[in-house]
Amino acid sequence: MSNLDDILKSRRDTRHFTADEVPDEVIEKALQAGHWAPSVGLTDATRYYIIKDAEVKSTVKNLFLDYNKKAEELTDNPEQKEHYKSLKLEAIEEAPIGLIIAYDRSVLNQFTIGTVGSNEAVKFSSVCAAQNIWLSLTEQGYGMGWVSILNYYQFKKILDLPESIEPLGYFCIGKPATNYDNQPMLQQLHWKQKSETPNCSEIKTVIENNVSDFVLKTQPETENTTNFSRLLQEKIDSKTKPVGALGTLETLAFQIGKVFKTLNPKIINPNIVVFAADHGIANHGVSAYPQDVTRQMVHNFLEGGAAINVFCNQHDIKLSIVDSGVNYDFPTNANLIHAKIAKGTQSFLHAPAMSETELQLCFEKGKAIVETIAQNGSNCIGFGEMGIGNTSTASVLMSVLTGFPIEECVGKGTGVVDEKLLQKQNLLKNAIDNYSGSTELMQQIAYFGGFEIIQMSSGMLTAFDNNMIVLVDGFICSVAFLIASKINPAIIHNAVFCHCSAEKAHQKLLNYLQAKPILNLDLRLGEGTGCAIAFPILKSAEAFLNEMASFESAGVSRK
Amino acid sequence: MSNLDDILKSRRDTRHFTADEVPDEVIEKALQAGHWAPSVGLTDATRYYIIKDAEVKSTVKNLFLDYNKKAEELTDNPEQKEHYKSLKLEAIEEAPIGLIIAYDRSVLNQFTIGTVGSNEAVKFSSVCAAQNIWLSLTEQGYGMGWVSILNYYQFKKILDLPESIEPLGYFCIGKPATNYDNQPMLQQLHWKQKSETPNCSEIKTVIENNVSDFVLKTQPETENTTNFSRLLQEKIDSKTKPVGALGTLETLAFQIGKVFKTLNPKIINPNIVVFAADHGIANHGVSAYPQDVTRQMVHNFLEGGAAINVFCNQHDIKLSIVDSGVNYDFPTNANLIHAKIAKGTQSFLHAPAMSETELQLCFEKGKAIVETIAQNGSNCIGFGEMGIGNTSTASVLMSVLTGFPIEECVGKGTGVVDEKLLQKQNLLKNAIDNYSGSTELMQQIAYFGGFEIIQMSSGMLTAFDNNMIVLVDGFICSVAFLIASKINPAIIHNAVFCHCSAEKAHQKLLNYLQAKPILNLDLRLGEGTGCAIAFPILKSAEAFLNEMASFESAGVSRK
Repeated sequence: MSNLDDILKSRRDTRHFTADEVPDEVIEKALQAGHWAPSVGLTDATRYYIIKDAEVKSTVKNLFLDYNKKAEELTDNPEQKEHYKSLKLEAIEEAPIGLIIAYDRSVLNQFTIGTVGSNEAVKFSSVCAAQNIWLSLTEQGYGMGWVSILNYYQFKKILDLPESIEPLGYFCIGKPATNYDNQPMLQQLHWKQKSETPNCSEIKTVIENNVSDFVLKTQPETENTTNFSRLLQEKIDSKTKPVGALGTLETLAFQIGKVFKTLNPKIINPNIVVFAADHGIANHGVSAYPQDVTRQMVHNFLEGGAAINVFCNQHDIKLSIVDSGVNYDFPTNANLIHAKIAKGTQSFLHAPAMSETELQLCFEKGKAIVETIAQNGSNCIGFGEMGIGNTSTASVLMSVLTGFPIEECVGKGTGVVDEKLLQKQNLLKNAIDNYSGSTELMQQIAYFGGFEIIQMSSGMLTAFDNNMIVLVDGFICSVAFLIASKINPAIIHNAVFCHCSAEKAHQKLLNYLQAKPILNLDLRLGEGTGCAIAFPILKSAEAFLNEMASFESAGVSRK
Repeated sequence: MSNLDDILKSRRDTRHFTADEVPDEVIEKALQAGHWAPSVGLTDATRYYIIKDAEVKSTVKNLFLDYNKKAEELTDNPEQKEHYKSLKLEAIEEAPIGLIIAYDRSVLNQFTIGTVGSNEAVKFSSVCAAQNIWLSLTEQGYGMGWVSILNYYQFKKILDLPESIEPLGYFCIGKPATNYDNQPMLQQLHWKQKSETPNCSEIKTVIENNVSDFVLKTQPETENTTNFSRLLQEKIDSKTKPVGALGTLETLAFQIGKVFKTLNPKIINPNIVVFAADHGIANHGVSAYPQDVTRQMVHNFLEGGAAINVFCNQHDIKLSIVDSGVNYDFPTNANLIHAKIAKGTQSFLHAPAMSETELQLCFEKGKAIVETIAQNGSNCIGFGEMGIGNTSTASVLMSVLTGFPIEECVGKGTGVVDEKLLQKQNLLKNAIDNYSGSTELMQQIAYFGGFEIIQMSSGMLTAFDNNMIVLVDGFICSVAFLIASKINPAIIHNAVFCHCSAEKAHQKLLNYLQAKPILNLDLRLGEGTGCAIAFPILKSAEAFLNEMASFESAGVSRK
């Protein structure tokens, strides 16, 4: 076969192979075809691994079976499930050659042309190579099948692939046993029908890009509440305990009463909201984890497997997950609040993390999210975050907004080790030195950014406007609070600082904010976990105020 | 050109075009080539948009310029920056045809074959289409250039693309003005050199994947506890969080697992026991409250109006009240555990608080109470106390047993004021000076006494013997623990120190015991309230260990 259209047309995703061997020359020619594929910024990042060993294949097959079982469970109805189970979707053990096509994302450690908008271009280059290989094999009379039903994490692990190598899948190669009546197998088996022609339309105009100005309300509370405060304190002191003996619980009870403006305060529909986003600075190796972990953890939140799920379940707290700007496309029907500004911020090392428009959008979306929660009857909201690299963002923001030197604002984040810590510190110092903008708050926070951080700040301000208790989690969340409090200092009255993080800069920031945290448990996880873990203590404060007997009612002598 | 290898080899990422028009048939043929590309699960999600309008092109060009400026800032050094600025990386305005290749991620709203491991397969299908189009155009004598230097968010916005449509980039199509000496332009211009051959290696073995879903042993593993500890720590570290990020909760989870000798520890029937007794020393005015408050508070406990009732209700903890020696005759049918030794101890100012027989009875009754609780299936017991004057007893015991001077062991108790504090201190100093007994533990504790304190010590030892978790409350409870640990130092393994009291001597005692308390809330109430308030944190430790997903099960990358 030599005509391009014939090759393109007869290329199949093959799952049925004969027992014929595949000569080495065929593979070599095919890989050369892959090597001729485009490579963004000439990164040359595609990597190939050949598998012939039966035991290796069998282990990969087991991985497939595991996730295929999972896929079965994801089908939309029982009929579809049966149909799905009847499909042969791989030929891992039968195909004589297994091929892994992968890309090495460590090329992103240096400047790479074509990745400023999205670094996905690197993986796209490798996909182009896969397609070239497919076409070359088809031309040579061979076939290939792309197996993507795999737990990629375990896949990398069992094959001992280096940390920076990201496989696109497992590709089965051999002599095809069928051409599926010259159509995709899934069409032959009536799973779906492919459209006759490509879906194409012409774009003839552009839309004006206007974002309305967002002005944050600050409503000063000048009402005289002295009398109410006295009544509230009297109620607390009338309980059958020495005055002040419940320590922080008494302070909290007083605060809740003040915020809800009642002697019988009740926390209703508590809700923790986790804002997730990616950070351009993560590409500079500031985190111990790859950026992909942000979306993996969002997935984990949605599946109920993360720490915050466990603690929210424990305490009947509603959990909401927001995609503020994760570098990944989630399904639109995912149980996720879609507030994506972009697929991650830009690195603020030399340029702004976000544009002014993006900043405004952060304020708008953060506000809208919390307004909806308030309208649904919640009067207590906890703020949490997830974002690989966001301790770096938070450190820089803290340094810029408080004037503390960056060294005092940097910590280990999720666990970078000592030599890397110095490197991180220097990097962030450079970023601050490179900033030539004004000291105006909005310009500063746009430059150093963090979609989830700004959305949290906006959400906190909105929660305050709705007379809600604001639960502040760890370091990053406290930086969001810092920003919010620069806009409206009164917000401190509604804030409950849930814990002091193991991140050393957090203690410093809490002191700066004159905040006394409830817990001191060396937590450094984020996700709002500190809010959830501290929540029962807030409930204890509410409970003693509402439920304990007074000296009078219990007939106990006061001193 | 018709030979596949020639087409693959001569395909270029083109940025230089002639002014020649591109006939519609060429585009149609190319899009048909794209349509023949694979489509994961036959999702058919690729979408094409054609752009011919000059104004649209100019707006896109401006987006490119904005991000290209940003990319300049991202270069690694000034030399590279100059080189970068010299490169022509697009031909948006010159190329006669603009094409957007995109995918519609709304297909993911239904079950889609091949996306269980990663839904990126959808976008990869569209990238394969892009490569097919590239090859078809090359075959037809045309060229294409992939522009990815764009803010995709704004790109979508100005082109009014639906929310679910994700563009791969902007593709410039036209007649190539050059073939860049038959190599990538970036190579021709010495930006980088592409490797001669594809990077390929063979994988011949697999790594044992021994950490997949734990098969957890629930049998006691007393022989080899080192191995068990390692497994337990591995389980904790396998959870989807950075190692150690749950701080104290991880320590607690490890401790619970060790005490219960299982990787799946469960707290069953938690029970707080409040031991109440009166103290002869109270007659010397050491407390702010009259002695009668002891029995009034016992009454309050039984009526459900005290703080400990409220907190036990909140957390479903069973509450038991013990009359260890209150100076009052309760009705025998009261909902009270009768373990009265006498109606209060004697004052230890000049004589022993209790006899050796009474001491012996304290140990017996404390043991019996906790054995009954253990037999009822509880594996977690909290100790609390009530007794006017018992901070004085506790201070003296602490001083005598640790050697710290009495000044460092005395606090305000339930709230004596400063001049009275000095008086209390002097009184207790006299009491110690008056003691002429031996340094033998049993003699010391009988002399300074406290029926509820000794019963608690005995109860703690019994709880340890029954493999129970021992929750230690505040200062007085910690003194009971001090006594117990002098008898059996191993008891520390089962002890959870729930809080550090506002009583200053408590911090000193906790340091002496090398104990790290969970809470630091300035509580100084006793009654076991610290145990109850800290209990949900213990439950959080249990919950994360049992319920959180592991890196493996959630498919999250470890660092």
